[in-house]
Formats: sequence, structure tokens, C-alpha cells
Amino acid sequence: LQQWRQAGGVTQRDPRFSVVSDSDLQFFESVLGDTGGVVTDPHELAPFNKDWMGKYEGAARVALKPKTREQAAAVLRHCNERRLARGVGLVPALSLLQGGNTGLVGGSVPVYDEVVLSTAAMNQVLAFDAVSGALTAQAGCILENLDSHVAEHGYCMPLDLGAKGSCHIGGNVATNAGGLRLLRYGSLHGSVLGVEAVLADGTVLDLLTTLRKDNTGYDLKQLFIGSEGTLGLITAVAIHCPPRPSAVNVCYLAVPSFEAAQQVFVAAKQQLGEVLSAFEFLDRESLLITLRHLPGAKDPLPSCQARRTARRGPLSRAAPLYVLVETSGSSAAHDGEKLGGFLEGVMAAGLVLDGVLAQDGGQARAMWHLREGITEGLRHRGAIYKYDVSLPIGAMYRLVEDMREADWPPIRVAGYGHLGDGNLHLNVSAPAYSEELRQQIEPFVYEWTAQHRGSVSAEHGLGLMKAGCIGYSKPAAAVAVMRQVKAALDPRGILNPYKVLPLPAE
Amino acid sequence: LQQWRQAGGVTQRDPRFSVVSDSDLQFFESVLGDTGGVVTDPHELAPFNKDWMGKYEGAARVALKPKTREQAAAVLRHCNERRLARGVGLVPALSLLQGGNTGLVGGSVPVYDEVVLSTAAMNQVLAFDAVSGALTAQAGCILENLDSHVAEHGYCMPLDLGAKGSCHIGGNVATNAGGLRLLRYGSLHGSVLGVEAVLADGTVLDLLTTLRKDNTGYDLKQLFIGSEGTLGLITAVAIHCPPRPSAVNVCYLAVPSFEAAQQVFVAAKQQLGEVLSAFEFLDRESLLITLRHLPGAKDPLPSCQARRTARRGPLSRAAPLYVLVETSGSSAAHDGEKLGGFLEGVMAAGLVLDGVLAQDGGQARAMWHLREGITEGLRHRGAIYKYDVSLPIGAMYRLVEDMREADWPPIRVAGYGHLGDGNLHLNVSAPAYSEELRQQIEPFVYEWTAQHRGSVSAEHGLGLMKAGCIGYSKPAAAVAVMRQVKAALDPRGILNPYKVLPLPAE
Ligand SMILES: Cc1cc2nc3c(=O)[nH]c(=O)nc-3n(C[C@H](O)[C@H](O)[C@H](O)COP(=O)(O)OP(=O)(O)OC[C@H]3O[C@@H](n4cnc5c(N)ncnc54)[C@H](O)[C@@H]3O)c2cc1C
Ligand SMILES: Cc1cc2nc3c(=O)[nH]c(=O)nc-3n(C[C@H](O)[C@H](O)[C@H](O)COP(=O)(O)OP(=O)(O)OC[C@H]3O[C@@H](n4cnc5c(N)ncnc54)[C@H](O)[C@@H]3O)c2cc1C
Repeated sequence: LQQWRQAGGVTQRDPRFSVVSDSDLQFFESVLGDTGGVVTDPHELAPFNKDWMGKYEGAARVALKPKTREQAAAVLRHCNERRLARGVGLVPALSLLQGGNTGLVGGSVPVYDEVVLSTAAMNQVLAFDAVSGALTAQAGCILENLDSHVAEHGYCMPLDLGAKGSCHIGGNVATNAGGLRLLRYGSLHGSVLGVEAVLADGTVLDLLTTLRKDNTGYDLKQLFIGSEGTLGLITAVAIHCPPRPSAVNVCYLAVPSFEAAQQVFVAAKQQLGEVLSAFEFLDRESLLITLRHLPGAKDPLPSCQARRTARRGPLSRAAPLYVLVETSGSSAAHDGEKLGGFLEGVMAAGLVLDGVLAQDGGQARAMWHLREGITEGLRHRGAIYKYDVSLPIGAMYRLVEDMREADWPPIRVAGYGHLGDGNLHLNVSAPAYSEELRQQIEPFVYEWTAQHRGSVSAEHGLGLMKAGCIGYSKPAAAVAVMRQVKAALDPRGILNPYKVLPLPAE
Repeated sequence: LQQWRQAGGVTQRDPRFSVVSDSDLQFFESVLGDTGGVVTDPHELAPFNKDWMGKYEGAARVALKPKTREQAAAVLRHCNERRLARGVGLVPALSLLQGGNTGLVGGSVPVYDEVVLSTAAMNQVLAFDAVSGALTAQAGCILENLDSHVAEHGYCMPLDLGAKGSCHIGGNVATNAGGLRLLRYGSLHGSVLGVEAVLADGTVLDLLTTLRKDNTGYDLKQLFIGSEGTLGLITAVAIHCPPRPSAVNVCYLAVPSFEAAQQVFVAAKQQLGEVLSAFEFLDRESLLITLRHLPGAKDPLPSCQARRTARRGPLSRAAPLYVLVETSGSSAAHDGEKLGGFLEGVMAAGLVLDGVLAQDGGQARAMWHLREGITEGLRHRGAIYKYDVSLPIGAMYRLVEDMREADWPPIRVAGYGHLGDGNLHLNVSAPAYSEELRQQIEPFVYEWTAQHRGSVSAEHGLGLMKAGCIGYSKPAAAVAVMRQVKAALDPRGILNPYKVLPLPAE
């Protein structure tokens, strides 16, 4: 059970943090009791202490669910000031802060007994401007609910991810979530218009405007996007929603090499232009995982499997890579025409071995299922070591190949991800978990990524899992500035301790 | 001559800053002399001391033009450390930093005798990745040149502005420039991939990656976007370029009210969707300015002018507002069809009095000329008071109306701007400049904007002109955090003093 702490570089509870006392609980009750916002019952507490993967488990004695920013501010102020009241150098640590608890790097779960501050009760939509498309909502709103809300006005959320039914918009902003629409709508750094946050000392930082343009001083809200709960509690978010596309098309292509996949991507950008909304890839190993382990998964291109037939003679090589191209636009006829032209072009240029265009929503979903189901399928493969790296597109797939050829015990390596964003999901599986193997694989992946100026965390963040890995992707001077920012906003280090930028030992 | 300083709240040279000495000049020569990077000749120096509008004028004795980040770092380190060498609390102030010197708020010009550090000699394109569209360039590259560079590969820059022939990409990032493509490609916070900056103490902060996704710690590059030279010298930028649209269409519509203009905007978003690339508006007063003062300007819709004819009887009311709608896409046929459908729809719904679709590039340019020429036309109108505010779209035009009805000496008020972005350019003209009038108008505009939670600087920044106005658009808690950020990155306040966040008096 200690293993996950150690993997995150934490060997003991920081003795500078105090333990939650009965008088703390009384204070929390006085602020949140009326609205049922203090959770101490072990049964109710359990889900707050465990992460989505079931990999990380904390021992919080209390979880708090404020409904308003004022409640959140009162709680934070109390925790921050307590050391004055007691005259000792101790502060209760807060596992700041939990949203939907779908994070994949152990960021949203207490490491020891930190107080959990959850946005679960902050779930009100505050406003929607149907002219500009600006949505304002409390941080605990579930992404999928917001998407349904704006759909009524002909808009969509600028992000989408597998966890949409559980993750909170505040958690999305706190992790700078990427997901499936990034290629089309860009990152949250571009689409978030405003943020309201409560700082460690209880100060409410109200940057909750819905303006698309505002050049009055530094854009502080940007600091909270991707801060993973270490700089303040995001209590509300304003976000710019694009018009909802009415037509969606998907096609699935087998390509002979990663080089060809890149050329297909360039052709897609040129010919599909503004309607291109996803360009994903999966390798053969990834395809086999879904085909074998996912009930109902079907190969859309059986012609691209290897087989030895009398007629063909020797074993024909199966396609090594597949890409999924999606368009979303405002006219089905126009998009279909564009897609047709694109497909003809890449076929004629010999960039594609074979391809198929979804004829209806069911076929489109089946294609997406192949790509999205890989995570689920992998669960049937024994122990999994998951990496989420970002690389210059040209170098991206070489990491997978190098992993396969490296000199270590037999493993299986699957590579897939968001080709258009240079984001590789690299999954290694072995029959059983071995710490020794992890200690071989992990530095290899991270060093390889660093050498190619990639990112060791493209979209999942650092959390606990990769606290300590920041040096692979950021120079020391940058980490030093980050520490200054952290010290300015959370001088006592009470927000999400042990994560992202661990407190230097004293 | 002092007036512009006072308007920016500066009454005297900060005595804490020392004067550039001969030994400083010798040091600068030793670093930059070989590459001709030290400018002291008064004639050559003049353009560095004067801004684009001819409104602000400084008295720098020297301008420096480093070619490399190492040279820039050496210069900054020297300036920052000099107080140690002399044992006094003085530092030479740098007018950090000048790009193309096209800024409109006096940010790029020395207020007194600060050293000018210009990126004019840092003009190398460093790399372009034709698969991902990532461009990496030194900060002094001129925007228009970069756009031509990427055009060769089928890409375009994600921003465009009237100053493109002179402004530098570093200056664009430092001001978070908006411009004409923001509606389509979003702000620089979304499209800038990486920044390399030299801090006040000479530290090189290398955040120059080309990754689209990187969630390893706080996204520090965001702080430099819009920092207006107060946090560090941006020496290079990596930016994501979208595919270049091959088809552009423009139409020009007369609408009966601002309310109707908003509905036309919603219809455009729904029906033009992904190809909508600009939605601009101008009011009648603005139209008259270009028609009267710009040689060759022609009214595309003469039917919408007021006239008294025998046949029509009473004076028919001229259209009060005009909108310009642009589409950019990858297929002229598709875009034309979408635009046709949109026009039919808004005509049928009675939202539009009359409209015209440009039949060729010449007509399209003429329509844009009407909108873009307003700034130029205004110069013929006597004294101009210019405001660049951002407001919730619904409230936007009421500011213009309220200005016209307020109780002050006769003025003319023109309103135009980026309707789609909620960005109003408000221009007041009077026969002659009057400080008294300014002191009536300015608080009115800023307070009105603050009441509607708008921004007193949508895209031009604070610079010197609006240093001191930040409180209208940002709460005190935010300004306090900004000061902490400034103190962390530039503890001695040597970077662009008097601007954005003036040093508190001691
Ligand atoms: C099936 C599945 C698919 C996924 N797909 C993607 C994907 O495509 N792209 C992607 O980027 N991620 C993906 N994720 C990861 C995860 O869903 C995202 O990171 C999500 O944005 C987290 O939101 P949450 O509300 O669950 O946050 P949590 O898991 O509760 O918290 C995540 C981090 O944010 C902090 N935090 C949460 N709320 C706040 C707040 N209000 N204020 C301050 N800090 C806060 C926490 O302290 C923690 O560090 C996926 C996860 C799952 C389970
Ligand atoms: C005709 C015209 C049209 C314009 N249209 C628009 C428009 O549509 N949208 C818009 O937003 N702006 C517009 N502007 C304003 C201006 O062009 C932009 O702000 C532009 O981005 C400034 O770039 P520059 O290189 O000229 O910077 P400068 O004017 O030299 O500097 C501007 C500010 O940035 C700082 N700075 C410059 N370079 C650096 C660097 N390398 N590192 C750190 N700080 C630096 C300076 O200190 C100063 O504070 C327009 C200006 C003109 C003259």
C-alpha cells in the first residue's frame, strides 16, 4: 500500500502538518453543518479517499462540501490561520481539491490524512449568454450536464473526454484537460474566459468575467488552468462555447507506416480544413487489444489483416497502423463532399492501404469504440504501465518502436493517441506487476521524451504520480519560478501537499 | 510635453533609477559593439524615442539591439546588478522592451531616459514544422514576414492586424494582440506554444517547446503573454499556425438596430459555423468618417442613406448600423452556398435592411477598407480621444448612446469594432484638444465599463496611458497577486518602469 506513495517520491507524512482536531471539526460544522457539507462517516468518506483507478488511497478523516465560495473561503481561512491560533508551526493540510475524482495521476486523493475539500455541492449553472456563447458555472458542474445545457441553445462545450459523465468543470480547468476536441477548439488556455478562485488564506479572487478580450494586467486566471489544486480552489468558471456542429462524419484508414500517417494528416488539414475535428491513431497492437478483449468490437477493415492464402502466396503483411479521421461541421452535404475528395486524394497518392467511411451513427460509434475502448481492453492484459507523453509529431512513434526493441524482459507495447496533437498514449503490459520492471521502463520513457523535448505529461498532469518528474520537461529556472508562484499564493503550502511541486524538505 | 506623462499618472522621474554612465556604455559596446547593436547617434535614436501616434516621446540616450538571447541576457544582468557594483540603491531602468513600436498606449517608449532594448536585430525564423504547423521564430520577426513564410507551406499566422507590416511577433505576444482573426482562431493564450524569455537578472527561461499539450506544472509562458515588457524580454516564440483558407467571402449589411445586429451574429454562428471568420460592425457616424475623409471610399449600400424625395415623402431614416461578415474556408463553392443561405435567412427574418455580397477581391477589399479606414479617417476630425473597451455584447452599444446623450460640450462619438468579440472601439472627437474634456470623458467611459464588468483595455494593453486604470477592470486582490508576480520576476523593477503596474512610491 505504501508503494504508490513511494513511486510519487513520498516516504513519510510531512510532520509540519497538524492533525485535524475536534475543534477543527466543530468549526467546519459551524460553517457547513446546516447544508450537510461535513462528511465524517467512514462509509460515506470512502469514495473521497480512493481514486478512479483504485491505485491511490488516502486516509482523510473528513471531507467538506461547500455550496458557496463564502463557505469555501471560511474553511480555507481557518486552515491557513490555525497555526497562529495554536502558536505552533503546524497547518492542517488540505487535499485540495477534489472535483469528480477522475484524475489519473493521484492528484485528487489525500496522500495521508489531509482534509478533502470537494466541489460536489457547487453544481449550479450561473449564466449562459446565447449571443456570445459564454457559459458561467460553479466548479462542481459535471461536464456532460453542461454540454446538455448549452446544447439547448445550439452550442457545445469546447472539450470532451471519456470521463465526461463524472468529471467537474472545475477539475477540467484545474487539470487543463485536453481530450477529444482539442484539435478543433484548442486548449482551455484559449477557451476559458474567467475563473473565480479562493486562495489558501481565504481571499476570493474574482476573475469571473465573460469577456473574450481583456488586456488589463497579467492574465492570472491562466495560472489556475493546470494548477492541479495547488494554487487555490476554483469555485466557478466562465468558458466560451462554440456553435454545435450539426453534421459529424468518421472514417477509418489503414496506413502502411507512421510516415504515411503524417502525410495523411497534412492532407486532412489542407482538404478538410475547418471541419477536421479529430485525427487519432492506433497501432496494430492496440487494435488487437480491443478486438480481443472488448465484447462486440469488430474490425472495420478485415482486408488489412495478415493472412496466408493460396492465391496470395506468402504471408501478406497486416497494416501496422490505423487512423481515425472525424469531421464536424454545419452542413452534412459539404462535409461529405470534402471528405470524399480527401479520401480520393490519399488513396490515389498511395498513402492509404484501405479505408472505410461510416455510413451512419452506429458505424461511426463502432469506429470510435475501437479507439476509445483501448483503455478498457488493456485491463484484461495483466499489469499495465501507462504513459501519456507529448512529442514532436515526427518523433512520436519512434518511442514505441524503441520500447519494443529495448533489452528487458518480454513486454507488450501498444501505442495510440491524438496524432494531430502530438500526444502519444504509451501502454506497456506484462503478466504481473514488477517494481523492478517499472524502474527500468519509466526512466527510459521519460529520458527518451526529454531528449526529444517532449512532455512527460501531455494531458493528465503531474499529481502525485509524477511529482518529481517535472525536471524531465521543464528547466530548473522554470521550476524555480513555479516555486515562487506557489510561495506567493500558498505560502504555508496547505494546498494539495506532496503533489506537483513537493515542498522542499527543511 | 509633460501632459502625456501626467495623463499616465507619472509626475517625476523615479529618483531610484540611476543614469546611464560612460562605463555602462562601454559595457554595452563590449557585448554588442561588434554586431553594431549600440545606438547612440541622436538621429538614429529618434525613432526609438517616439511612438507610432507621435503622442509619447522619451529621452533615452541609448538603444540596444541584441541579436541573440545571450547578448540580451548579458545586458540585462549588467543593468540588474549595477547597484551592487556601486553600492547604492540605484538601478538603470530599461524601457523593456521595444518590438515594432506600433503599440497604442505608450508602452514601448521610454518615459524618461530608460535604456531601450529592441528586438529589431532578432529576426531569424528558427524552424517550421510543416506537419504540425508549429512555427518557431526570434521575437523580432515582423508579423507579415512570418505570414508569408508559413504561406509557402499552406499555413497562415493565427493573428492579423493593421500594423502587421511593422509589429514584431514578440511585441504581439507581449501585448496579447487581438486583431482581425481572433473570432476564428482565438487568442494568443491558446495559439502560442512556447516562449523563450530573458528575466531581469539575465536568467534565460527556455519554455520554447512546440508541443500542443504539456501539463507539467504551471504554464508560465502564459504570464508573458500580455505582460507588456514588465516581466522579461521575450526573445523567441513558438506558435501554432492553422491551415491557410483558400476561399474568402465578404458581405456588408445594413441593420436597423444593435439588437438586430446581435441576432444576425447568432444566425451567422449557426449557419456559417466553422467558416465564419469576422463579424465587425460600424455605426453611421463611423461610416460617414470614412466616406468623407478617405479618398476613394464608396458606400456599398447607397440605398441605406437618408434622403427626402418627392416620391418618398418624409425623410426616410438612414440605417444606423452596418455589419461586415467574412467567411474563410477551404472550398469557395461550399462557403458561397452557406453564405447564400445565411443571407436569405436574415433577410427573410427582417433583421437586415439591405445587404451586398462582394463579387470579387476588389469589392471585398473596399468593404474592409471602410471598416479599417476609420482610424485613419478620424485623424481629419480634430482632437481624438480613443477608447478600446470590451463589454458583454448585449451592453456594448449602449455606451456609445449614453456618451452621445451625456451633458458635456458638443462632441462627436463614433462606435465600431469587433462585435463578435464584444470589443468596442469608441472614438470621441472635438475640434481641439482639451484636458478638461478628457477629465470628463475618461472617467465616464471607464466607470461605465466597470459597472458592466467590462475591460478598459480589450486589446491594446495598459502601457503608460492606462497604468493606474487597472482598478476599473481588476479587483484589488488580483492587482496584489500581480504585484507579487512582478516582484518575483523583476524584484528591482528595472523592466519597463512606470508602465502597467507602477512601482508603489516608497
Ligand atoms: C475514462 C477517463 C477518460 C479520461 N480522458 C481524459 C482525456 O481524454 N483527456 C484528459 O486530459 N484527461 C482525461 N482523463 C483524466 C480526468 O478525467 C481529467 O483530468 C479531468 O479533467 C479531471 O476532472 P475531475 O473533476 O475528475 O478532477 P479530480 O480528479 O477530482 O481532480 C484532478 C486534479 O484537479 C484538482 N482539482 C479538482 N477540482 C478542483 C477545483 N475546483 N479547484 C482546484 N483544483 C481542483 C485536484 O486537486 C486534482 O489535483 C480521463 C479520465 C478517465 C477516468
Ligand atoms: C495601425 C495599427 C493597427 C493596430 N491594430 C491592432 C489590433 O487590431 N489589435 C491589437 O491588439 N493591437 C493593434 N494595434 C496595436 C499594436 O500593433 C499591437 O499591440 C502590436 O502587437 C504591438 O507590437 P510591437 O512589436 O509593435 O510592440 P511595441 O509597440 O514595440 O511594444 C508594445 C509593448 O510590448 C512590449 N514588448 C515589445 N516587444 C517585447 C518583447 N520582445 N518582450 C517583452 N516585451 C515586449 C513593450 O515594452 C510594450 O509595452 C495596432 C496598431 C497600429 C499602429
